[in-house]
Amino acid sequence: MITGETLIGSRDVTAPATFRAVDPARNVAIEPAFSEAGPAEVDVAAGLAAEAFPAYRATSPEVRAAFLDLIALRIETLGDALIERAMLETGLPAARLAGERARTTGQLRLFASWVRAGGADEPRLDSPLPDRMPLPRVDLRLRHIGIGPVAVFGASNFPLAFSVAGGDTASALAAGCPVIVKGHPAHPGTSELVGRAIRDAVQESGLPEGVFSLLTGRSNELGGALVADPRIKAVGFTGSRAGGLALCRIAANRPEPIPVFAEMSSINPVFLLPAALAERAEALAAGFVSSLTLGAGQFCTNPGLVIAIAGAGLDRFLAAAGKAVEAAPAATMLTPGIADAYGKGVATLEGSAEVTEVARGAEGGPNGCRPALFVTEAAAFLREPVLSHEVFGASSLVIRCAAADEMLAVARALEGQLTATLHLTPADHTLAARLLPVLEEKAGRILANGWPTGVEVCHAMVHGGPFPATSDPRSTSVGTLAIRRFLRPVCYQDLPENLLPAAVQAGNPLRLPRLVDGAPETSGEARP
Amino acid sequence: MITGETLIGSRDVTAPATFRAVDPARNVAIEPAFSEAGPAEVDVAAGLAAEAFPAYRATSPEVRAAFLDLIALRIETLGDALIERAMLETGLPAARLAGERARTTGQLRLFASWVRAGGADEPRLDSPLPDRMPLPRVDLRLRHIGIGPVAVFGASNFPLAFSVAGGDTASALAAGCPVIVKGHPAHPGTSELVGRAIRDAVQESGLPEGVFSLLTGRSNELGGALVADPRIKAVGFTGSRAGGLALCRIAANRPEPIPVFAEMSSINPVFLLPAALAERAEALAAGFVSSLTLGAGQFCTNPGLVIAIAGAGLDRFLAAAGKAVEAAPAATMLTPGIADAYGKGVATLEGSAEVTEVARGAEGGPNGCRPALFVTEAAAFLREPVLSHEVFGASSLVIRCAAADEMLAVARALEGQLTATLHLTPADHTLAARLLPVLEEKAGRILANGWPTGVEVCHAMVHGGPFPATSDPRSTSVGTLAIRRFLRPVCYQDLPENLLPAAVQAGNPLRLPRLVDGAPETSGEARP
Repeated sequence: MITGETLIGSRDVTAPATFRAVDPARNVAIEPAFSEAGPAEVDVAAGLAAEAFPAYRATSPEVRAAFLDLIALRIETLGDALIERAMLETGLPAARLAGERARTTGQLRLFASWVRAGGADEPRLDSPLPDRMPLPRVDLRLRHIGIGPVAVFGASNFPLAFSVAGGDTASALAAGCPVIVKGHPAHPGTSELVGRAIRDAVQESGLPEGVFSLLTGRSNELGGALVADPRIKAVGFTGSRAGGLALCRIAANRPEPIPVFAEMSSINPVFLLPAALAERAEALAAGFVSSLTLGAGQFCTNPGLVIAIAGAGLDRFLAAAGKAVEAAPAATMLTPGIADAYGKGVATLEGSAEVTEVARGAEGGPNGCRPALFVTEAAAFLREPVLSHEVFGASSLVIRCAAADEMLAVARALEGQLTATLHLTPADHTLAARLLPVLEEKAGRILANGWPTGVEVCHAMVHGGPFPATSDPRSTSVGTLAIRRFLRPVCYQDLPENLLPAAVQAGNPLRLPRLVDGAPETSGEARP
Repeated sequence: MITGETLIGSRDVTAPATFRAVDPARNVAIEPAFSEAGPAEVDVAAGLAAEAFPAYRATSPEVRAAFLDLIALRIETLGDALIERAMLETGLPAARLAGERARTTGQLRLFASWVRAGGADEPRLDSPLPDRMPLPRVDLRLRHIGIGPVAVFGASNFPLAFSVAGGDTASALAAGCPVIVKGHPAHPGTSELVGRAIRDAVQESGLPEGVFSLLTGRSNELGGALVADPRIKAVGFTGSRAGGLALCRIAANRPEPIPVFAEMSSINPVFLLPAALAERAEALAAGFVSSLTLGAGQFCTNPGLVIAIAGAGLDRFLAAAGKAVEAAPAATMLTPGIADAYGKGVATLEGSAEVTEVARGAEGGPNGCRPALFVTEAAAFLREPVLSHEVFGASSLVIRCAAADEMLAVARALEGQLTATLHLTPADHTLAARLLPVLEEKAGRILANGWPTGVEVCHAMVHGGPFPATSDPRSTSVGTLAIRRFLRPVCYQDLPENLLPAAVQAGNPLRLPRLVDGAPETSGEARP
């Protein structure tokens, strides 16, 4: 079922160079060999995508929605084979992967419903005013269309939900954009299975083959050629800060610059406010370590920073969290490279004279993530930029502040984040009200009394945030608002009715919610 | 009333170096001398803007709307002095400037009404599902906030509507972002008058002084320092392709890259379809030359390219248009630099072996724009990239196509445009239907039976388009949709009601339109 071929439109392509996935739990290469795609394959895939774009973007909301639904069904049809291959390639447990699959298919279906509800078109109509003085107002109608073929870079840490059929693919397809995925080389078999499911859906839906391609490979040259291709009009990426910035540079230096939506780096500060800490230090410690060690800490929203005011509450939290970390088992990390980077990141903290180790977890097998908890003083954190670098994995640093003002100073010194969390009781609200305006400028999502590792796929979610959390804080990579990154508005002035797209025709034949003269259209009645 | 000082918050700042405006109709420098701001002034203005941002973005929609309304009023209060100074600095006639002032104040008031209507916040709420299995859904609420201080570059060709209080300033202020304008050095007195009007409104509204600054100067160093300043979070620009791309590069190479919305270059193709041409060649010629020569052709939407199929209709059009161009008076251009560039652009067309001159207009005085009309064959246009370069001013090139397929080939070969226009009758609809999908991918606005020089400020307008018309086709610089360029979403998870911003509180105290679970909220009733 897994052939190792790269999927270019309807074609299975074999390249001379190959690579193999690694089973991180055993540190051994696994079969089969996968083709290393390169610039030649990018050229063919981009050509097919550009060819497919006019027909694909012209599909009705219903056709695109049915296509997204079918992709979800075809992924489910893959059954246990998908979960088993993903386990082998990522070291993630079956239950987590089954949950991630449900999230992935749910996400595709949510975008289907959003497209049906008019979330792609967002039409606006302004009524003509033929008698206006000194000049009449013309008839103006606006809708949104797909921006063009989109390049999506699969992430290593969500082999399903942020990978081949992940959020960026779902939102781009929903927007009417063909997608070329550069699959993450850590899970090429998982990628191929999902890629074939999407291709099946393309064919069953009667869509042009170029709507979807999957390029496999490990080289920076592959990704660079994809972003540089003039037929690509936007890029979605989830991964490292260095990788994201490299793609941003390539995109900005094209003859025609294009937007890159890179989700990169976040340490997700958690503020334990004094009354909450006094009331429930031990429960907070238990919740924190559970969030910290979930999935070996390999989440973009992993709580890598805890900020609290010195005192008995924080001492109790540290004692309890330390014990929980010591008791936490080592989990296999996704790749040898990630495990290596984790070891180096933890070593940097261990080697800092400013930082004290609170606890380490158990040693593990190959590529095991040994959880780590450290503590430092706020003054040291404010002085040492290295202490705010992301350590991808189950490592966190507690910042001890002398007083509330120092907690605010730490908040102000933070870089952009995906999330910021407050643990509080009503007695903490005054301090929380001081922190909130600062955190709103730092993070895309602000949580109270929860943990950031858990990203609901819905309409009000923001999985994004100021740089370096992402390259564009005006967007989200999770939730229906994500569709806007791949859409552009087009305005029609005085076009004859029979040449207008259905979304803006009189009588609203697609029954979309529309703005008329700036207010919601009150009915599906024909405009005068 | 005009002092030549640069306006940094509430301070009048005098710099040692100065420059003077030029009266283009006489080619003489005019008083007074204006301070040349530089990096030191950028530093102070950016510091004040960053300081003002938290308080300004936290203002209610009503406070921001009233502030925008007051700016409009204060501009009107300037009276004739504004029009007279603008005439002197730009060579534009009084009636045009009075119309532009009405557009500018109308635009400020439209954004005021849009902010009142919830266009900035765009709140979304997803209901918690405490009983959902396997995991409950948390309470999620989203609103949009300003991205941060915005740098706005005034354009030379709209000394009011795209300048100090122009569209970018209006949309950024509406979004809750402080604005630092780099005034265009061609109209510094006009800029100062409008800048002082905005400053008065800031003070009368009790807003922090850093909400607005106006930096005057001619140097690239000034603009570069402004875009590079880490406290600036987005840039709005209208001007040349070279200038826009230079700012894009500076922004992309910052440690924290930021979005640049540059409106740059467009030749605004006009397609004369065969039946329309046969029916009304002379009327089309009259309308075309009137649009071409309006304001010496100094519009981003000036019709610089006309595409038609060879035949008697086109011959009639060329004859009539040629006569109209010959009869067109020379109008003073905005600056000696623009007149010089116009002369060089026209000379390039005159010098091309592929191009034939149809007509030139009258010679003018200093910086006079002598209208120009040329014709070439489609095959030559497709071969010679220089023929599609923008000539800013009243120059246009007619492309003679052998047949409909060649017209389509020309459409496909176009770069990105602000507008594309079709002149057609019902007999042309079949050809128009073939052209439309191509033009939708090329232009932000598509017109039928009109002329592109006229941009309505409303909800359904798109003044934008694919590169090089702009640096980001997902946006518009005119109309209420422009506010989105300066907003970012923030999500609140499980926040206690009294810590939530009003826009997403239960009971909808601000009475904003909101999405609840993806559908419009049905009333202002409290959520459960």
